[in-house]
Amino acid sequence: MKRIAVLTSGGDAPGMNAAARAVVRKAIAEGMEIYGIQHGYAGMVAGEIAPLDSRSVGDKISRGGTFLYSARYPEFATLEGQLKGIEQLKKFGIEGVVVIGGDGSYHGAMRLTEHGFPAVGVPGTIDNDIVGTDFTIGFDTAVNTAMDSIDRLRDTSSSHRRTFIVEVMGRHAGDIALWSGIASGADQIIIPEYPYDINQVVENINTGFVNGKNHHIIVLAEGVKSGTEFAEDLKAAGYEGDLRFTDLGHTQRGGSPTARDRVLASRLGARAVELLKEGIGGVAVGIQDEEIVTSPILGAAEEGALFSLGEDRQIIVNNPHKADINLIKLNEALSV
Amino acid sequence: MKRIAVLTSGGDAPGMNAAARAVVRKAIAEGMEIYGIQHGYAGMVAGEIAPLDSRSVGDKISRGGTFLYSARYPEFATLEGQLKGIEQLKKFGIEGVVVIGGDGSYHGAMRLTEHGFPAVGVPGTIDNDIVGTDFTIGFDTAVNTAMDSIDRLRDTSSSHRRTFIVEVMGRHAGDIALWSGIASGADQIIIPEYPYDINQVVENINTGFVNGKNHHIIVLAEGVKSGTEFAEDLKAAGYEGDLRFTDLGHTQRGGSPTARDRVLASRLGARAVELLKEGIGGVAVGIQDEEIVTSPILGAAEEGALFSLGEDRQIIVNNPHKADINLIKLNEALSV
Amino acid sequence: MKRIAVLTSGGDAPGMNAAARAVVRKAIAEGMEIYGIQHGYAGMVAGEIAPLDSRSVGDKISRGGTFLYSARYPEFATLEGQLKGIEQLKKFGIEGVVVIGGDGSYHGAMRLTEHGFPAVGVPGTIDNDIVGTDFTIGFDTAVNTAMDSIDRLRDTSSSHRRTFIVEVMGRHAGDIALWSGIASGADQIIIPEYPYDINQVVENINTGFVNGKNHHIIVLAEGVKSGTEFAEDLKAAGYEGDLRFTDLGHTQRGGSPTARDRVLASRLGARAVELLKEGIGGVAVGIQDEEIVTSPILGAAEEGALFSLGEDRQIIVNNPHKADINLIKLNEALSV
Amino acid sequence: MKRIAVLTSGGDAPGMNAAARAVVRKAIAEGMEIYGIQHGYAGMVAGEIAPLDSRSVGDKISRGGTFLYSARYPEFATLEGQLKGIEQLKKFGIEGVVVIGGDGSYHGAMRLTEHGFPAVGVPGTIDNDIVGTDFTIGFDTAVNTAMDSIDRLRDTSSSHRRTFIVEVMGRHAGDIALWSGIASGADQIIIPEYPYDINQVVENINTGFVNGKNHHIIVLAEGVKSGTEFAEDLKAAGYEGDLRFTDLGHTQRGGSPTARDRVLASRLGARAVELLKEGIGGVAVGIQDEEIVTSPILGAAEEGALFSLGEDRQIIVNNPHKADINLIKLNEALSV
Repeated sequence: MKRIAVLTSGGDAPGMNAAARAVVRKAIAEGMEIYGIQHGYAGMVAGEIAPLDSRSVGDKISRGGTFLYSARYPEFATLEGQLKGIEQLKKFGIEGVVVIGGDGSYHGAMRLTEHGFPAVGVPGTIDNDIVGTDFTIGFDTAVNTAMDSIDRLRDTSSSHRRTFIVEVMGRHAGDIALWSGIASGADQIIIPEYPYDINQVVENINTGFVNGKNHHIIVLAEGVKSGTEFAEDLKAAGYEGDLRFTDLGHTQRGGSPTARDRVLASRLGARAVELLKEGIGGVAVGIQDEEIVTSPILGAAEEGALFSLGEDRQIIVNNPHKADINLIKLNEALSV
Repeated sequence: MKRIAVLTSGGDAPGMNAAARAVVRKAIAEGMEIYGIQHGYAGMVAGEIAPLDSRSVGDKISRGGTFLYSARYPEFATLEGQLKGIEQLKKFGIEGVVVIGGDGSYHGAMRLTEHGFPAVGVPGTIDNDIVGTDFTIGFDTAVNTAMDSIDRLRDTSSSHRRTFIVEVMGRHAGDIALWSGIASGADQIIIPEYPYDINQVVENINTGFVNGKNHHIIVLAEGVKSGTEFAEDLKAAGYEGDLRFTDLGHTQRGGSPTARDRVLASRLGARAVELLKEGIGGVAVGIQDEEIVTSPILGAAEEGALFSLGEDRQIIVNNPHKADINLIKLNEALSV
Repeated sequence: MKRIAVLTSGGDAPGMNAAARAVVRKAIAEGMEIYGIQHGYAGMVAGEIAPLDSRSVGDKISRGGTFLYSARYPEFATLEGQLKGIEQLKKFGIEGVVVIGGDGSYHGAMRLTEHGFPAVGVPGTIDNDIVGTDFTIGFDTAVNTAMDSIDRLRDTSSSHRRTFIVEVMGRHAGDIALWSGIASGADQIIIPEYPYDINQVVENINTGFVNGKNHHIIVLAEGVKSGTEFAEDLKAAGYEGDLRFTDLGHTQRGGSPTARDRVLASRLGARAVELLKEGIGGVAVGIQDEEIVTSPILGAAEEGALFSLGEDRQIIVNNPHKADINLIKLNEALSV
Repeated sequence: MKRIAVLTSGGDAPGMNAAARAVVRKAIAEGMEIYGIQHGYAGMVAGEIAPLDSRSVGDKISRGGTFLYSARYPEFATLEGQLKGIEQLKKFGIEGVVVIGGDGSYHGAMRLTEHGFPAVGVPGTIDNDIVGTDFTIGFDTAVNTAMDSIDRLRDTSSSHRRTFIVEVMGRHAGDIALWSGIASGADQIIIPEYPYDINQVVENINTGFVNGKNHHIIVLAEGVKSGTEFAEDLKAAGYEGDLRFTDLGHTQRGGSPTARDRVLASRLGARAVELLKEGIGGVAVGIQDEEIVTSPILGAAEEGALFSLGEDRQIIVNNPHKADINLIKLNEALSV
């Protein structure tokens, strides 16, 4: 290939810029031309496409957000949208595309490839819920941001026996809650992947205070329920003490990426370019056991494909991401 | 005086530790003994009092929260509570006390002094709403914490035309909103001290998008109304775009204090000790026009006292703190 | 005036971008056109001048460095350089200029104004050594950066009785050393404005260890001597313990500006535009006792001018900046 | 075992506190008593040993440094030192010990076990140069600290064509240089494990400037040579431009640990306790391919032991840690 493009798609994540920078620089180093597509698939269809050079991504590695802008664009699920997108890309002489984003972005990449237009997926989302990789770009930063906020909350342990519910992001995956909870020494961590008994939660709070704790911090993944609902449940279950609630909200999506996210983004972005250069599309890159790996996006589970098609052509996730339940048990031991 | 004590009272603030450290070290440097009272006035009455030495406050200058613990204790407004407190202090041979906290803390200090027990107030609160000082200990840190969070929110400007409402602390004073808003380049700042027209707010949002802005950030002081209520108002006034809400919450109270808060805390804490050494109580220290100043807590307005008593002995604030309205106008010019 | 320009000059400082943003936005709000000059006076002479709009400075408030680039350009001290600069400005229809920088930058602004071309100075430097202002833009950030580094050094107090010399910036002014030293609880602070006795320094170290300190941190302003020289002096004066040296170096110049620097930059930048709008040049803005003030750059000392000309036309600084020596004494008390 | 102890040894690293906290809490959760040994092996021999409880490690997870203090103590290499240490431990009824530290610490743990006293090693050092683990506790934090500093240096890119040499820690391993260099977008990275040609380094600088770069950052691992020596080499090889040097120094050892270091420390500390509970000593824990693993400290290379004894009983490192050279090549591509 002589000319490729890069876009970011879905909810933005710290490190997307670092990944896009890696794609740009690696493409140039490999002798290819590189274009940027703004606003994800929406911009692809609309033709928001322009050439990038090495200087375009200068100083971008340290920036949060994405200079290419991201967008959700459900319309790309239609054949019409996909063909329009390819038409636009061809107009610019583009032969392959790197898509940085989440699950939905992968589906788009898969469709492009099916239509003969090679696309490679790069996992970018704070939630860490993408198949085919141990860690997504943005996860480490989000965990550190959440941890810093929880550290701050622990500072204000001025009152006796205050309980804090801290709601963190993670619609389907409890990873941010798990990691930031352990890292900040949370007293309890509640995630969608692991059942909890609200009466036991209350008992743990009370036992903690009896054992001399000054405060009690519960980290709650948004996928379980909202913090206000959880607070109601606690009261309904008999908790009578001081109770505060904080939703860390969109701050978790921003900020300068951590070193780990920048290095991961650099490695994955560069690998995606190598694949396109070899003419390979329809795959996603990831990191597994500290190695950079490549997986087919669609195919048979036995071949390591991330998704399969069911009988009625619905998408099946072959090896759904699972939060590491051992970490929940670890935290139970460490929060005595 | 040969032996004095220090306590922290009310909502905690970053820099309270730095102030307490300054009190401890300065007292020792002046040849006095120094005791710490835990949990504010409640601990005073309960006798939670113990000697401190120079090493007790080692490495405390950089810590958020307060190692003396703070507490609200409305019971100290009663004569009985005050006399019990003095009794406890005398039991430990303590002759004067430094009170680090907000308005309520000052009232306690005033009562102690009236009963012949000299007490000096040091302004510690993130809200910057204490009379007799341009800046309170903790304000600069809270502003920087809020600013960092708003910076992160601006990173996630992935979608076109998203409006963010960011609720920051400040029940009576808009200072945190004003300063963090200007510092983060907020598009609009809404504070209790300055009227706003909800229709104008909506128009400003729309005009901004027409002028090419990608996002619109409104910083809202909690004293105006809650962010969810404000969001309802926006919609009722006709705003139809993407609208997100974040409450920065208690994270604003925590964190390692900024240099400015640490230096201010060091200066004020040391000055409070000098006053007690001279036998002076019933006053509060502060910074005005970059000078450390002392004001009587109770007295005539003409004498510079912070509070006066009205005809029916209710407390009158003589020169209520006011947010700098010029900053609102400055931001209107800078958010074009 | 209908069209003005802005440049940054001298060593760069965090907050220069915030100041330039304020100049740009305020000019637009006042109905003026605004141009940016790159690389300071050098770029002025070379004609590196281009129009800016409101979006040009979007997201710039939080960035370290200066997007206009700064440069030192001693050639601007010559009449030839100045006239060439004015010629270029007139070519672009520019009628006034805001100069953000240090002392040298002010001299240039003064010359431009003398030649009939109004220029206003805005104090931007981390050293806090500019006359006519209590604080310069960048100082607060540099102090916090130095403080954070010293906090880190204190963490590594793993060994008994280790002495750290930390060299911070400040060629002529000890302000960074003083403020970061007090803020980080340094054991000793050595600045150019205050004499020290090397034997006393050694004695203080030894006394500290006898009194139970685990480590001893000396913050040294570069204007005194280099840290390596100071270490030699300590050894020559008989210090025999473990001795480490760290020069915080250029990291102090970078980083996202603090809230205080951003607010100060916003206020000063906006004020400079107001002055130009009224046709006023040859002045510098500053903050004194928390008020925004204006001072003539050149003139009689009695009229509040920052500089006078001596008999042989050499420049005399009328009220040279002085570090607050009280802070040194405060730290002596607090480092017991 | 009913009673175990924990110590930190060697150069301190962020996350040592988190590891020690995990040891303490996990031991309690397993029904064991736990003691802390201060100042490493020196304190073991001197009997600086005291019981810890759950509250002793409250709020310690976020602190840099080590509350147990660390120390280097070469005397522990002698049989006499080891037996004295065991004698002290037995006096306190201690039956096993967790040693958090570097290579030297492992040798001590190995000797203790040989004398019938089970000891388990936990890898704590910023250098990432310990065998038996992909990552050491403290490495991630040090990398982020170095990256933040380099980000700051890049901000001050005010002058054209300035070259910065940034010296980072790493006596034998280039990992900190590699990771922080890639993460900060360094132009060149020089490490001990990979040869460089000084003439090529100069050529790369010059090419970069020709290609439009404003600055050139070289990250240098201290194990190669000092930054001042390297600067001399650059000049000797013909580099004539502006050249600055910064040694990040001991700031890299401090600071609040990152989430990743805290989670890693928590997992490894807890695992070490499980091993002691089963009566297992003479092993070290680590993380490999994201799994927690255990390796014999001394033994045959085929059995996965970290060290073997040579014919004359000198210690042989079986699988010496190697920096990932692919990262060097990645950076070459990305710094175009």
